[in-house]
Amino acid sequence: MKQVYFYSQLLFSCVIFIWSNKADAQEKMKYLDAAQSDPVKMGWMVGSPPPQDRIPRFDDGSFFQFPALRWSVAHMRQFMPTVNVSRGLGASASFATNIKSNIDKVQFVPLGETKAITWEESLQKVYVDGVIVMHHGKIVYEKYFGALKVDGQHAAMSVTKSFTGTLGIMLAKEGLIDTTKTVSHYIPELENSAFGDATVRQVMDMTTALQFSEDYADPNAEIWKFSAAGNPLPKPKDYDGPKTYYEYLPTIKKNGVHGESFGYKTVNSDVLGWIIARVTGKTIAEVLSEKIWRKLGTEQDAYYSVDAIGTPFAGGGLNFGLRDMARFGQLILNNGKAGKEQIIPKSAIDDIRKGGSKKAFAKAGYTLLQGWSYRDMWWITNNDHGAFCARGVHGQVIYIDPKADMVIVRFASNPIAGNGANDPYSLPAYDAVAKFLLSSK
Amino acid sequence: MKQVYFYSQLLFSCVIFIWSNKADAQEKMKYLDAAQSDPVKMGWMVGSPPPQDRIPRFDDGSFFQFPALRWSVAHMRQFMPTVNVSRGLGASASFATNIKSNIDKVQFVPLGETKAITWEESLQKVYVDGVIVMHHGKIVYEKYFGALKVDGQHAAMSVTKSFTGTLGIMLAKEGLIDTTKTVSHYIPELENSAFGDATVRQVMDMTTALQFSEDYADPNAEIWKFSAAGNPLPKPKDYDGPKTYYEYLPTIKKNGVHGESFGYKTVNSDVLGWIIARVTGKTIAEVLSEKIWRKLGTEQDAYYSVDAIGTPFAGGGLNFGLRDMARFGQLILNNGKAGKEQIIPKSAIDDIRKGGSKKAFAKAGYTLLQGWSYRDMWWITNNDHGAFCARGVHGQVIYIDPKADMVIVRFASNPIAGNGANDPYSLPAYDAVAKFLLSSK
Repeated sequence: MKQVYFYSQLLFSCVIFIWSNKADAQEKMKYLDAAQSDPVKMGWMVGSPPPQDRIPRFDDGSFFQFPALRWSVAHMRQFMPTVNVSRGLGASASFATNIKSNIDKVQFVPLGETKAITWEESLQKVYVDGVIVMHHGKIVYEKYFGALKVDGQHAAMSVTKSFTGTLGIMLAKEGLIDTTKTVSHYIPELENSAFGDATVRQVMDMTTALQFSEDYADPNAEIWKFSAAGNPLPKPKDYDGPKTYYEYLPTIKKNGVHGESFGYKTVNSDVLGWIIARVTGKTIAEVLSEKIWRKLGTEQDAYYSVDAIGTPFAGGGLNFGLRDMARFGQLILNNGKAGKEQIIPKSAIDDIRKGGSKKAFAKAGYTLLQGWSYRDMWWITNNDHGAFCARGVHGQVIYIDPKADMVIVRFASNPIAGNGANDPYSLPAYDAVAKFLLSSK
Repeated sequence: MKQVYFYSQLLFSCVIFIWSNKADAQEKMKYLDAAQSDPVKMGWMVGSPPPQDRIPRFDDGSFFQFPALRWSVAHMRQFMPTVNVSRGLGASASFATNIKSNIDKVQFVPLGETKAITWEESLQKVYVDGVIVMHHGKIVYEKYFGALKVDGQHAAMSVTKSFTGTLGIMLAKEGLIDTTKTVSHYIPELENSAFGDATVRQVMDMTTALQFSEDYADPNAEIWKFSAAGNPLPKPKDYDGPKTYYEYLPTIKKNGVHGESFGYKTVNSDVLGWIIARVTGKTIAEVLSEKIWRKLGTEQDAYYSVDAIGTPFAGGGLNFGLRDMARFGQLILNNGKAGKEQIIPKSAIDDIRKGGSKKAFAKAGYTLLQGWSYRDMWWITNNDHGAFCARGVHGQVIYIDPKADMVIVRFASNPIAGNGANDPYSLPAYDAVAKFLLSSK
């Protein structure tokens, strides 16, 4: 039982929680390609009952193994308990469209390669499930593949963190959170943990110094304890560890000096989620609903996965529709304004866009992300377009390019979790589309 | 582990799956009243984390114990995996309203009592969470209590069955199902079970003769095996029974002669759900979405609870918003038409309204439901208003009174599961409101 239990943790955690900067694009060679692994063609969950080998399962972790993963990311609710982020009952905001099918022909040279490929070809390289490009506030490109439909929802993975960070800086600008205060000021339960003397700002920029290993080869790595704690299934009888996110977070020890190095660790987002819950007296699902989702003209409810006591997974548990992700991206690009309403204070967006410490970021050693920084749980490229983004494993992204007045949102199910596998086909693709749009009418 | 597991089954099954006709109104005396048990006032799931004694849990069954039950029925998704019934992305159909607050003062004498009470007082007697009265297609009364909000969803319990039955008769009228054929014609896997030689019609009217005990005092009763099979949690290591609904249903044995007696047994609805899935090649969630939910102008997605392989619980797993339940009830009253669209063939509604065998129904011995019958998984009163209804444990109802051109929909969280506890305060209340509306302009 224990073995099965932790096995399920292994698979679940590996892919949901973690940004791996060691991912090797070569690894992809051993996987079916996008067309071969199309989840509809593969017939996952078709039949009453479906064939045994076409039923992804949560308890043994098979739901998150490629290629079943490609079906599961569009159906996360069927595997686990969740909490709604209500859009309310109002009308959705309609999109203006100005489809530019020529985008498919835009060419670029993938990082580390020499031969140009087209945007259209790149979609298959990163196993895209859905992608929208917005330009001047209009949809200029929109496609769905495999198991994702326009009215479906998809796992946002670590794009969730940027929502948590956005809510955090919103509450700071509203005066509910003082980012210079220590975490323990808001969450006394964390006083004796690594977070006790970290500032909220350090948590928001992930410059906390944590003893938190994500080495999957090490059975004692903290990541196992974190994911076991957050798993909503009943714990095995002999399990004596933390049983919820809130029980786990106080156990994290300090390792080093806060504020010096960027360290991308999911638990920071969950600590910020806890602070948001504490200062508002509401769950982060309710806060997201009230402050953004109900005001934005979204067309579908969003949802979070939850732990055994219903705490939303602020570090990676959010799911929503692609068009609603586009609405959110456009809101950020528009400095927090949608229509005539200032939903997010402009000062909060300014805070995100000014970026974090490049020096601290450089210490993390992302070879493909030279010169980037991290602020309010957003990735800041510091390129000459002022682009910044939200990123999640398996290829989820919100990419905002202010100079090109462009937003790209994408759901994907790349067999490789780490964005190192997506970036060579994504970062230059975004630039090429931005240039194409800047040069088109 | 096993004990805990089956304990959770016990609580979960007792209240979700079963209509108890033995419920005793006196039993209610030992419970907190509606005001005392208000789930918002009790503070369930408030705090980060909430207090230990304010966290309803799925694995130990506490989520479905009164008074936590009152919070849980409005948050079922937080406890278990579910599948969406998409409304699509279109605009919702707006309601005309003509609020008649005088309904609160309508008086009636509860069954078995001598003193009249008002409609308003009756709401507390049955622990109402939300209620809408429609008259001439307009909302004339709408109230929410406790944990249910206008944009929330609530468990429909066995009201689910009437959706399953409605889809069944729709598919029959479309020629996809022949109700005179045996179940085994559609589901060969059921050939050696009680259902093998039962007709689809007998399943739809629950006149199958099944060895299916719902005696909770008997640890060998079939209800335990059914609920253990359908529980989405991983099975205990030593569990060797059926692991899904589709594995369980073929094990049901025959006991008697089909077609003679009405026997309200949830498994009939799950067999009909299986037939619907088989003939359409889709899950019942998809069929409900395509045939009704997307066409009706609903304002929220609905959802089903599912078993370990994602099969929706066709006998009791549906959840949706109160206004959407009103839309559905109005659709049935309008002979399947919403606006200008004939969503359900009128012949299907005619089939429901003509009712089932009164003789077969009488054998079941419901003392409060003299002269009623059961058809297409709807309860037919055969009263002089031609009223018929969908009913679920703990007080869920869609009550349709054609003569009064009235629909009443209600979500509730009565501590007593069986409708025997609700009927004395409900059936005469519906009649009194119908008379009031008939006499008002």
